[in-house]
Amino acid sequence: MSLVVVGTVAFDAIETPFGKTDKILGGAGTFIGLAAGKLGVDARIVSVVGGDFPEEYLKLLNDNGVNTEGIKVIPDGKTFFWAGRYHNDMNTRDTLATELNVLADFNPVLPQSYMDCKFLMLGNLTPQIQKSVIEQLPARPRLIVMDTMNFWMNTAMDDLIEVIGMVDVLTINDEEARQLSGEYSLIRAARKIIAMGPKYLVIKKGEHGAMLFNENSVFYAPALPLEEVFDPTGAGDTFAGGFIGYLAKTGDVSFENMKRAIIYGSAMASFTVEKFGTEGLLDLTSSELNERLNQFSEMMQFDIELD
Amino acid sequence: MSLVVVGTVAFDAIETPFGKTDKILGGAGTFIGLAAGKLGVDARIVSVVGGDFPEEYLKLLNDNGVNTEGIKVIPDGKTFFWAGRYHNDMNTRDTLATELNVLADFNPVLPQSYMDCKFLMLGNLTPQIQKSVIEQLPARPRLIVMDTMNFWMNTAMDDLIEVIGMVDVLTINDEEARQLSGEYSLIRAARKIIAMGPKYLVIKKGEHGAMLFNENSVFYAPALPLEEVFDPTGAGDTFAGGFIGYLAKTGDVSFENMKRAIIYGSAMASFTVEKFGTEGLLDLTSSELNERLNQFSEMMQFDIELD
Repeated sequence: MSLVVVGTVAFDAIETPFGKTDKILGGAGTFIGLAAGKLGVDARIVSVVGGDFPEEYLKLLNDNGVNTEGIKVIPDGKTFFWAGRYHNDMNTRDTLATELNVLADFNPVLPQSYMDCKFLMLGNLTPQIQKSVIEQLPARPRLIVMDTMNFWMNTAMDDLIEVIGMVDVLTINDEEARQLSGEYSLIRAARKIIAMGPKYLVIKKGEHGAMLFNENSVFYAPALPLEEVFDPTGAGDTFAGGFIGYLAKTGDVSFENMKRAIIYGSAMASFTVEKFGTEGLLDLTSSELNERLNQFSEMMQFDIELD
Repeated sequence: MSLVVVGTVAFDAIETPFGKTDKILGGAGTFIGLAAGKLGVDARIVSVVGGDFPEEYLKLLNDNGVNTEGIKVIPDGKTFFWAGRYHNDMNTRDTLATELNVLADFNPVLPQSYMDCKFLMLGNLTPQIQKSVIEQLPARPRLIVMDTMNFWMNTAMDDLIEVIGMVDVLTINDEEARQLSGEYSLIRAARKIIAMGPKYLVIKKGEHGAMLFNENSVFYAPALPLEEVFDPTGAGDTFAGGFIGYLAKTGDVSFENMKRAIIYGSAMASFTVEKFGTEGLLDLTSSELNERLNQFSEMMQFDIELD
């Protein structure tokens, strides 16, 4: 089913203990779109780039199942740029540069061809932009998934809470869930956040996996332990793209199917972190993905017969 | 099958954000023995206490399935004492006092009635003591599980490595696995540690769960998210006691059964942290345990049919 993705399309410059890159293709919208595209879903991006954004990157997105009609090009503007350096443990990073450029005045306008959107993924952006996209759609999508981060909790909490009240699934990390709810226990945090509107909450825990909550149930998928984490950039967005991509592909938004979507997202993210930028995701074949989905089954499977 | 547990039997004084205790019953051997006893296993402790150790605590252990014949009482000595204070997040704690007392000269002697030991649990103690217990047994047990900690890596690495080479299962936390192996990736760390002798490695990750490795496979059980963590003292030892207790009860040391043992250990530890000291474990009924084992199944169960 049709999927619309709102998120940044950007340049990243990344330093890790294994090497460094010049400006390469990055951005939440890019990773989300490519992950969904890998699953055969028609992913339509809404974003903005500058005149410095190479035509070949747009072609690369198109070639990988991503519709770029909704990416506005501002010829005399510059593309959003982020530079960061990861430490040895790969769990902490320093931001070396953040140049908003054309993103500073981003006012998304959905093309007519996006209007039949059934699945909507709101990548991490200002809450006002996320809200504006929801309001442009003539009919409410079947499922709206929203990603956000602590920055908006610190700077735009009222706006954020308003948009959270409009979506079906919120994805945040464990520290953000604690900050948003004021509860340390993730069980209590989930209960409070679900009372704010979303029917589902996904808590991302990086190398410790991901949890899915609804009002009554919890599903907890560990992350696949890897030989090497090469570059964590885009892992969370790949996860989100695999998650909503799988739901859009199957057209099934039950809790049981969301469990599978969590596993798909986790498996796809495990490829992203094994190479720089989008490379791991672009190289991914369906047999490699299936192999890793099987690894999740083996890693989590057990049976206990109770007395 | 017969289980021998070597570990401390101690007094703990605990402060948490929820309250504080006077000297209460604690120690690794206590939690391990009580957890195994809860599963109906005849758990025989080897330990040492002072003349200040109340008769009622020995009776409490006996009443809960723990054989205390191997607990040596030194009438004019004092029992090992630990005092600690947990911070708000319950993941970090300050040690306020450590009085080794009779533990300083602990030289375990196994009673004749313990000699038919088939399952041996070496709680966290000096590697020399752990080794001495193995050497006192006339026949090698079917399974030796060893717990240890970073303190011995910093102060007695050679001795530690010798004992690690003598056991079947090593249990440590993620930071300790990294320290012991010199590898950040837990996959690589596990491979190196298994090459040191043990056929199995259990990596304890606290609120993030526990991983079981053998040479070729990995099983990863998340921890059950709880409403409230009241006092984490003894969680790791309860986990170890539930783990080896389940294996001793079933007499099955296959990887598949170790997965179940990980779930039993995790489920039992979730009760320990809900009350002060041993209280949560002592109050535990088998129907409550079954309910929580079911929660693990629900939390981890999913099915994916691949294309």
